[in-house]
Amino acid sequence: MAQYKFVLDEKDLPKRWYNVLADMEPPPPPIHPATHEPVGPEALAPLFPMALIQQEVSSDRYLPIPDEVLEVYKLWRPTPLYRAHRLEKALDTTARIYYKYEGVSPAGSHKPNTAVAQAYYNKAEGVKRLTTETGAGQWGSALAMACSFFGIELKVYMVKVSYHQKPYRRVLMETWGASVVPSPSGDTNAGRGVLERDAESPGSLGIAISEAVEDAATRDDTKYSLGSVLNHVLLHQTVVGQEALPQMEMAGDYPDVVIGCVGGGSNYSGLCLPFVRERLVSGKKTRFLAAEPEACPSITRGEYAYDFGDTAETTPLLRMHTLGHSFVPPSIHAGGLRYHGMSPIISKLCADGVMEARAYHQTKVFEAAMRFARTEGIVAAPESAHAIAAVIDEALAAREAGERRVILFNLSGHGHFDLAAYDQYLTGKLEDFAYPVDKVKEAMAGIPKVG
Amino acid sequence: MAQYKFVLDEKDLPKRWYNVLADMEPPPPPIHPATHEPVGPEALAPLFPMALIQQEVSSDRYLPIPDEVLEVYKLWRPTPLYRAHRLEKALDTTARIYYKYEGVSPAGSHKPNTAVAQAYYNKAEGVKRLTTETGAGQWGSALAMACSFFGIELKVYMVKVSYHQKPYRRVLMETWGASVVPSPSGDTNAGRGVLERDAESPGSLGIAISEAVEDAATRDDTKYSLGSVLNHVLLHQTVVGQEALPQMEMAGDYPDVVIGCVGGGSNYSGLCLPFVRERLVSGKKTRFLAAEPEACPSITRGEYAYDFGDTAETTPLLRMHTLGHSFVPPSIHAGGLRYHGMSPIISKLCADGVMEARAYHQTKVFEAAMRFARTEGIVAAPESAHAIAAVIDEALAAREAGERRVILFNLSGHGHFDLAAYDQYLTGKLEDFAYPVDKVKEAMAGIPKVG
Repeated sequence: MAQYKFVLDEKDLPKRWYNVLADMEPPPPPIHPATHEPVGPEALAPLFPMALIQQEVSSDRYLPIPDEVLEVYKLWRPTPLYRAHRLEKALDTTARIYYKYEGVSPAGSHKPNTAVAQAYYNKAEGVKRLTTETGAGQWGSALAMACSFFGIELKVYMVKVSYHQKPYRRVLMETWGASVVPSPSGDTNAGRGVLERDAESPGSLGIAISEAVEDAATRDDTKYSLGSVLNHVLLHQTVVGQEALPQMEMAGDYPDVVIGCVGGGSNYSGLCLPFVRERLVSGKKTRFLAAEPEACPSITRGEYAYDFGDTAETTPLLRMHTLGHSFVPPSIHAGGLRYHGMSPIISKLCADGVMEARAYHQTKVFEAAMRFARTEGIVAAPESAHAIAAVIDEALAAREAGERRVILFNLSGHGHFDLAAYDQYLTGKLEDFAYPVDKVKEAMAGIPKVG
Repeated sequence: MAQYKFVLDEKDLPKRWYNVLADMEPPPPPIHPATHEPVGPEALAPLFPMALIQQEVSSDRYLPIPDEVLEVYKLWRPTPLYRAHRLEKALDTTARIYYKYEGVSPAGSHKPNTAVAQAYYNKAEGVKRLTTETGAGQWGSALAMACSFFGIELKVYMVKVSYHQKPYRRVLMETWGASVVPSPSGDTNAGRGVLERDAESPGSLGIAISEAVEDAATRDDTKYSLGSVLNHVLLHQTVVGQEALPQMEMAGDYPDVVIGCVGGGSNYSGLCLPFVRERLVSGKKTRFLAAEPEACPSITRGEYAYDFGDTAETTPLLRMHTLGHSFVPPSIHAGGLRYHGMSPIISKLCADGVMEARAYHQTKVFEAAMRFARTEGIVAAPESAHAIAAVIDEALAAREAGERRVILFNLSGHGHFDLAAYDQYLTGKLEDFAYPVDKVKEAMAGIPKVG
């Protein structure tokens, strides 16, 4: 009989994180918004513990995972790798489809991989309280869980549209002990500023970041934690791809194309970077395909430029694909993908032609999610369903070409807290949002001019 | 470093179900309500396919699992066995706590173990449409998923209070293609009858069963499917305990006490029956402890008598612990435990002193669930949290006694669709329901008098 799952034992858990900066031409450094000089680690010290800042700028190929972090990873890692036999059959494809399933974590996504590491390093440096932002709530709930394990207080600024679309996500964070407010909130200058301009603002990750950063920067006992974009976040996620490599070997296959959804880029990086290394170092010919929302298509339509990471212009400038830091994306259900920018590492890999991107409308995304639910059983998060849409495209293209294409993707989370979106799809109420040309044009005009 | 998870490979999936009837003194047979004569298999033929009826009355010790069922089991089985190191530490106990986690199935509970088998046998006998009832929605969503895999139409009568408490459960069933109505509904005589007497009826499993049975009995293309209570359902669940036996061996321990929550008895039976065999046949001294709600305490306060399985008195009489078939339990959040009766097998094991039971109020249950979420990470279903409450009691008793007690329990499902209940707990709005003495007395008066 066919094998569906490839599982590793706890002893096979990776003991170190993989740092792609050792193997790729590194992205240009973050720079100061006024001087345009590279910012040193000390500029980040008010926001992050020193251990994370060191990881952010490290060029070591491998960094050790502390035992305390491994002990928590064991609550759900290693995660299974699946062969999607039933989906393949439904698509009548010659392709072979594999997925790494990160939805088995208690928070339901890949996000705890970095949340646990960040909570640990903050705790180790005596931090008592953390702030963060969250979109759909995947990141906020992961950090809430991690903070509950390490005894750290947490305040989450949750993008307002998601706060109302996904009330259970809020309760989940509260169950793990976090306090949650909708963003823009009245608790910060950044939030109050947005509310003055637009009392009905649905919020965005950019705004919520400004609030969480301001809160942390203005309190001595508090630091800030980010769930995507930055190098150290992507680093922590590489346990995913490091597990997938031996699991693909168990399956007797190697991917021709590796796929993931991208918002800030962390889940996709987690899966693909160890495979990117195989391409850069060992000459493997794997393609890398990032799936993003048509409503917020930073790679496919954005500019590769220095821009702020947040709306209130409080962060250093990062060289990345951006739609402009003031851009507030339409309220798609994939809240985790509503970010104007993109991880500098992913941006650089795209700019260098190592990686490609494709954008999808949300009706097509949910159509793919329905197909997946009715074949593989798992009800995917709307974010992850972007990857499924791309996988189905690739599998159908393989059928057309008569190719035995091996596809690997990251099923980064389940959709148990996104059923309201499925309800809209099932009742024909789900809308697509066209690429908001004018709003993006306006936002792009605000991208700083860097020489 | 300590080991947290004990995982089996797909090839270690049990290939047969274990039938405890071969090893225990069987419970008295179902009897006809009028004649009080044992009912033969033919009486069940309008409701169930012949293969399931044969399993219901089989005395073979092992029954083979069809390949088609194993192929679907592989989407999530074998499930992990966990050592709860973090909970043990929080309780400062000398006990060693293990749990089998069935929440990894796509439907989020143990229910697919039998749903898939039932859908398969119905399909094999040409059944086009199934009906069923569901309480909290765990069973309904499991059967919806199974029917989607085997191409069977499904109608679910969902207990009204749960239909409104857990809207996402309905959407989940619809995502897998089922149609769902709140019960009592206007679609059946049984439902209309209840609504005439009490338009505000919150519904109960007993009522919903009457509706689903009536629907199936009055349509030629339709059969009925039950998610608990009956012998064949318990049989299918024994994959759980059969996996746990070698997993406990991997852990180098054997349980002193095996715990589970009970509504109809299926998840607990699934885990414990293979261990019951070890006690009956090999003389192991394991204790068996069933945890039930104080609001619906069929074992601890019910009568061990012949009673109807449903409210409308359409089923044969089963000898079981019952609070009376007309009893409508208070609207606790553990909807899956709101059943007036109990599986005849579990009832007999309790009557014979092989098994004991304990009842818990829901505030204590949620207190236990919170403790579990903040140590082990997993947010448990309110049903499963009854087991956690009993586990904590046992672990604290072991500490008092200075005993190295080995505790094994079934964490039968996650609580991702039950966050409204957690919200009530967190905001201090969760109420307890006293054991409804008068209502039960009235219902018990309606238990048929059998010689």
